[in-house]
Amino acid sequence: MKYPGGINFDKRKEEIPINYGNRGMNLEKELNDTNQYYLSKNIAFIYKKPTPIKITKTEYKQTGIKILEAFFASPSTTDYNGLYKGKYIDFEAKETTSKTSFPLANIHIHQIKHIRNINDNDGICFLIVRFTKLNETYLLTSFDFLNYIDNNKSKSIPLSYFKEKGHIIKDKYVPKIDYLEIINKIYGGAYFGNN
Amino acid sequence: MKYPGGINFDKRKEEIPINYGNRGMNLEKELNDTNQYYLSKNIAFIYKKPTPIKITKTEYKQTGIKILEAFFASPSTTDYNGLYKGKYIDFEAKETTSKTSFPLANIHIHQIKHIRNINDNDGICFLIVRFTKLNETYLLTSFDFLNYIDNNKSKSIPLSYFKEKGHIIKDKYVPKIDYLEIINKIYGGAYFGNN
Repeated sequence: MKYPGGINFDKRKEEIPINYGNRGMNLEKELNDTNQYYLSKNIAFIYKKPTPIKITKTEYKQTGIKILEAFFASPSTTDYNGLYKGKYIDFEAKETTSKTSFPLANIHIHQIKHIRNINDNDGICFLIVRFTKLNETYLLTSFDFLNYIDNNKSKSIPLSYFKEKGHIIKDKYVPKIDYLEIINKIYGGAYFGNN
Repeated sequence: MKYPGGINFDKRKEEIPINYGNRGMNLEKELNDTNQYYLSKNIAFIYKKPTPIKITKTEYKQTGIKILEAFFASPSTTDYNGLYKGKYIDFEAKETTSKTSFPLANIHIHQIKHIRNINDNDGICFLIVRFTKLNETYLLTSFDFLNYIDNNKSKSIPLSYFKEKGHIIKDKYVPKIDYLEIINKIYGGAYFGNN
């Protein structure tokens, strides 16, 4: 995959985890709209964390502080978290152009550690993975995600595993990606009490 | 308060909510150390969100994407959130040099709305406010914070209110600011179940 300036983006994957260009922007936009919908209906309060940035040069201006030089840093957690019916929700969302598997290079080692911490400490944690060329979006719980990576040496999770263990998120009109509907099904109403 | 370049920082408070210079850095560092301690002991998983930044100019380099121009944006949520014993934790931390009151200009309108959402939806939410010249740090629950601002027209919360309704956080060696000790006292063990 070539980007402006002829730089091979894939080679820089370790340094630059964000999906620059168009990669991932659709899913991100749809999730932001979905979260905005949840927020407006008082259903859940889930936000995308800003991409961490290392600032190396600034300038004081009349209108504010201007950043003159900065670089993207690796996130140490997942991108999304928040509150749903008194519970802690935490997830990462990724798109892949592969038709057969989800490359694990998409998830940083710090993020995997974070997912494990949340999973092991009663947080609701999952991945949302979109196979863009198939137009299929899956929710995979942290439990099933960790179970796969702990028991397989492969560098990607096959689509078949998503079909078997994941939960397909069907496109809706509003909200676009109703992932909390899946969470309700997985955990059941009792888990959330009478909230 | 004058900053390099002679710009009056206070006038720009609305545009630049971050505590640049030294303001707030001690509390922030102590909280980061505290959260690191909680994390290392598997007690809680609480992170500071990066300050949101609006990027206006970038350049592709061999080593990654370099940001050539960017500005700080206003946060729409509080700075810290995470997971503690299965519960959602959310807070904002601020320092003030005032000896008598905490100026509400320190908390943005979007943040107040967020605090209200979390408070009303069973999240554990609070402020940590340090009066630097008194060397006193208080935890004030979102309930008591909202109660004050909903019933008072003043532009600051007096120290006496923190003394009456807040919970002083005593300096410890490790962790430095043990705010979860206060949360345990406020909510009681039963609230957290047997987690």
